[in-house]
Amino acid sequence: MVQGTFLQSHALFGGLSNEAIDGILPLLAEESFPAGTNIVNEGESDDRLYLICKGSVEVIKSVDTPGGRRDHSLAVLGVGEAFGEMELIDMQPRSATVRALENVSAVSLSNANLFEIYESNLETFTLIILNIAREISRRLRTMDALAGSSP
Amino acid sequence: MVQGTFLQSHALFGGLSNEAIDGILPLLAEESFPAGTNIVNEGESDDRLYLICKGSVEVIKSVDTPGGRRDHSLAVLGVGEAFGEMELIDMQPRSATVRALENVSAVSLSNANLFEIYESNLETFTLIILNIAREISRRLRTMDALAGSSP
Repeated sequence: MVQGTFLQSHALFGGLSNEAIDGILPLLAEESFPAGTNIVNEGESDDRLYLICKGSVEVIKSVDTPGGRRDHSLAVLGVGEAFGEMELIDMQPRSATVRALENVSAVSLSNANLFEIYESNLETFTLIILNIAREISRRLRTMDALAGSSP
Repeated sequence: MVQGTFLQSHALFGGLSNEAIDGILPLLAEESFPAGTNIVNEGESDDRLYLICKGSVEVIKSVDTPGGRRDHSLAVLGVGEAFGEMELIDMQPRSATVRALENVSAVSLSNANLFEIYESNLETFTLIILNIAREISRRLRTMDALAGSSP
């Protein structure tokens, strides 16, 4: 069972009160994935955000190379890190594949769950959206800096 | 004077009621910039979002090259387009310089203005943040795709 303190330590739930966290906990689905499993697949429709509780994952994007399409590793994420923030709010297809590097435990939150939070507690919903926007902004700044370093 | 219909046609204010738009209009500052002016400067602290009402701008990032630091053009934005979404919500320094390519009229919204909206109308604030998050997400997907095409 995921503890509220684990959620509260995460940037996406930063600023939420104990009561708000208690309201979110029942909405989270706990899931396990054996090492080597694709948790999400690039191009598929799936609007869940995942937060890693145990293990680590690799974020992989299929890219065109002169020798055909190849897997390109974008990042490795561990305990306390999340993926799927963009899909949770824009409901576009998965931008990358995420594969379990070892046995992984995670909690997930769907867009429908997020809408439940919106209906029951607008203040909590707003804080989560603001935290997600800041996280996506942080990633975009990193990508912009990378693009700037190799024009 | 900026019209509410102009705001409503913009993605950042999508979904807002006429009443919500009427509440935002008095918070917007109208500004003019002669051709060639830097409206914002990379690295500076400035938390305003700008929405272009007339003219066009160039988004420029200073990059390291073997021959020293050079200006690198990232994008040209025109009427109805915005810049500064990230700074409005994360209050980090400007990620790029934005220069007026011709005489530009724009309206701007500061983080303090956004906080006024938060205090007076949480529903409106939430919609704006959600729209900003989706816009930043759209840009990150574009950057991810670019990164994927040249690994």
